[in-house]
Amino acid sequence: MTKTTRSNNGPSRRSVLGGLGAVGASLAFASRGRAARQPTTQPYGADFRVDPLETVRIAFVGVGLQGGSHVENFLAIPGVDIRAICDIDAPRAQEVAGWVEKRGRPAPELYTRGETDWRRLLERDDIDLVFNATPWQWHVPVCVAAMESGKHTAVEVPAATTLDGCWQLVETAEKTRRHCVMMENCNYGRSELMTLVMARRGLFGEILHAEGAYIHDLRSIKLSNANEGLWRWQPSTLLDGNLYPTHGLGPVAQVLDINRGDQFTKLVSMSSPARGLSMWAQEHLPESDPRRNAEFVLGDMNTSLIQTAQGRTIMLQHDTTTPRPYTRLHHIQGTRATFKGFPDRMYVEGRTDGHRFESIDAYRKEYDHPLWTRLAVQAVGAGHGGMDYLEDYRLIESLRTGTPMDMNVYDAAAVSAAVDLSIRSVAEGGMPQEYPDFTRGQWKTNSKLEIVG
Amino acid sequence: MTKTTRSNNGPSRRSVLGGLGAVGASLAFASRGRAARQPTTQPYGADFRVDPLETVRIAFVGVGLQGGSHVENFLAIPGVDIRAICDIDAPRAQEVAGWVEKRGRPAPELYTRGETDWRRLLERDDIDLVFNATPWQWHVPVCVAAMESGKHTAVEVPAATTLDGCWQLVETAEKTRRHCVMMENCNYGRSELMTLVMARRGLFGEILHAEGAYIHDLRSIKLSNANEGLWRWQPSTLLDGNLYPTHGLGPVAQVLDINRGDQFTKLVSMSSPARGLSMWAQEHLPESDPRRNAEFVLGDMNTSLIQTAQGRTIMLQHDTTTPRPYTRLHHIQGTRATFKGFPDRMYVEGRTDGHRFESIDAYRKEYDHPLWTRLAVQAVGAGHGGMDYLEDYRLIESLRTGTPMDMNVYDAAAVSAAVDLSIRSVAEGGMPQEYPDFTRGQWKTNSKLEIVG
Repeated sequence: MTKTTRSNNGPSRRSVLGGLGAVGASLAFASRGRAARQPTTQPYGADFRVDPLETVRIAFVGVGLQGGSHVENFLAIPGVDIRAICDIDAPRAQEVAGWVEKRGRPAPELYTRGETDWRRLLERDDIDLVFNATPWQWHVPVCVAAMESGKHTAVEVPAATTLDGCWQLVETAEKTRRHCVMMENCNYGRSELMTLVMARRGLFGEILHAEGAYIHDLRSIKLSNANEGLWRWQPSTLLDGNLYPTHGLGPVAQVLDINRGDQFTKLVSMSSPARGLSMWAQEHLPESDPRRNAEFVLGDMNTSLIQTAQGRTIMLQHDTTTPRPYTRLHHIQGTRATFKGFPDRMYVEGRTDGHRFESIDAYRKEYDHPLWTRLAVQAVGAGHGGMDYLEDYRLIESLRTGTPMDMNVYDAAAVSAAVDLSIRSVAEGGMPQEYPDFTRGQWKTNSKLEIVG
Repeated sequence: MTKTTRSNNGPSRRSVLGGLGAVGASLAFASRGRAARQPTTQPYGADFRVDPLETVRIAFVGVGLQGGSHVENFLAIPGVDIRAICDIDAPRAQEVAGWVEKRGRPAPELYTRGETDWRRLLERDDIDLVFNATPWQWHVPVCVAAMESGKHTAVEVPAATTLDGCWQLVETAEKTRRHCVMMENCNYGRSELMTLVMARRGLFGEILHAEGAYIHDLRSIKLSNANEGLWRWQPSTLLDGNLYPTHGLGPVAQVLDINRGDQFTKLVSMSSPARGLSMWAQEHLPESDPRRNAEFVLGDMNTSLIQTAQGRTIMLQHDTTTPRPYTRLHHIQGTRATFKGFPDRMYVEGRTDGHRFESIDAYRKEYDHPLWTRLAVQAVGAGHGGMDYLEDYRLIESLRTGTPMDMNVYDAAAVSAAVDLSIRSVAEGGMPQEYPDFTRGQWKTNSKLEIVG
């Protein structure tokens, strides 16, 4: 089978968006009312574990660019069976299934009968893990249904775009005693994991402040006619806030022990005017493309501040629509040292000479995370510089050893909740939003994330 | 006269703080009530000018490190007479007066009879400009009294630390028809002025977002026994917010045409825990020093967000108490280009190759501000890389030509108000603070700052 270009063979935008009109889609993405939800379940804690699985039998829902990349990783990880693949794009599903067969493995069964064919897939009883790499509006429904059918879930970022969706994931995971893991690959970045090691070994002193971001010029991707271009522009016509907080906030939350000693308590947010997508559409799309006249409301630059229970602060930014180089910032500010990413640099009181940042090279040797030391060779060829491989590896390792997840459902909810909270704060002129405590107090006693070796 | 060290000959902290107890000092620095003030004057606009002065006769109030540095600049600028010097530190006043005499100029009269001797100075009728470089709590009282005695004023940063103080400056300037100029040297930084030229020539497209900061490890200065160490630690025991916003916000406001087409409308702020000064005091001060046991409340890292009437956003930071390299950020984000300072770098859509910042060198030639081209030779030896010289030069030039001030009293008030607004927002858990419109609507019609040649 040859690699197909999805622009020609893929579904129309209408089918991808599931026939939702603007109002329906808006509801799917963000709940505008107050989050008065009363949780009906008991937290199961950060140490929640299930019996070890000798082999992890996986079903994929969504094998676009990112889903397909995960399939490739899993083909390189021992103890994994890819049993089923669901995608609305049948040729793509066949293409990805072909990669499995090429390795001499049994062909995964395909589910390509439209956008809810994952329901039929969930009727199977030979699946341990549903890997959900669908467009954002399908993250919560697929995960919830998967857990209710007895399967663990892993989901691409953000896990949910509404507070209600975050709570649904938490409550369903607790009720069904299943894992729900958000696949935040940046939590496994070599530099991000190095700062976790630095933090644990006390190099920063007390950490006071951190910064994260997703600053990535996606104008051409959001307005392409293929892949994420099929759906990712649409939320920008409906929502104004930080639509993609997890790559910046996830690693920062990990270093700050959020849900494991500290907790997000409050968020404020402001957005700049929205110009980038309209300008790009006018200048690059043909006269006939309706997106030329779409009203984009997503402010190009969104900045949020988050306070934690320990009084620490996080500055979080989102900009996918202005011309500038990529960064996730990843700034960790302690009483004794400063780390800044993109490019990595370091200042350590009493060690760094002069009043300028020094190269990270010397620190890399001292503080490299053992996961990278151990798995760097395998990881290098994988997606996003290897961190995607590590997150997939750790997901499988945890399931096969019956150990707690590095990123559990509470982490998924806390980090993803910044979407809805930022939207609410922007809509209310910067009003502080109370951050839900998805752990319901267990953040005070949850054990810290291990530096797994 | 030999140069004295102020640690031995200077006044005690008690005298510097003017006998204010903690509560009195707190009131002097920040007004905690709502800013319900009703202005009693009419704005005089950004084009306000007075008759040209052939010679500008200056009296200095405060000739510590920064005041003394201004004296040196004025000695190199034509058309200036330094007539009087007031300082509570008599040896220092004599020392600085000696610099004037050494140039063959008449000796300035000295006012050194304690901390309100400036009142006696203001009785003189041969002074055009009172240059106020006192500790923060004296900025407003000295400026207001100076204007009421018919003199123009220039004041070090911040011009005021309370909203009430900002209004006092504005109303007094309007009532007395005097200039009140905040000496924000960073508005004259070569890079900052270059970005102003870039903005005017359209290189950024529409500017959407900006960032500024004062990140400067002052722990040893704040807790020294000399110079600013005599008073600058004390506000950190009383106030939590952005105590020193003007170096970051001033240049950004200049580029964004604040008060001249746009206006700050809202501010939110959060602070990290306060650790740096206590730790430093414990580790560096002798057992007998009472500051070892002072309770410092100023969060080490303060981050504020400001929204403007045009919907643009500004991220503003303050950190003087953690170990890391200096920065004022100076990030200007437009629809077409990005500038980032410290170190300067640039990304221009369609011009910059690849997805990385490029050096500023090529742009420097194209966009250098004419003030720098014209005055760079004189400026190079002066304070803070020359920008102090330029601000002093422009102050005198404007007075001698009878032209409007680059930074008028409205700019002083708007930029300084971030002190009190950030303190209020932090105290209220991040609540948005309405930004006063000191121009009372004239920001909509005020002409833009000229690119003076």
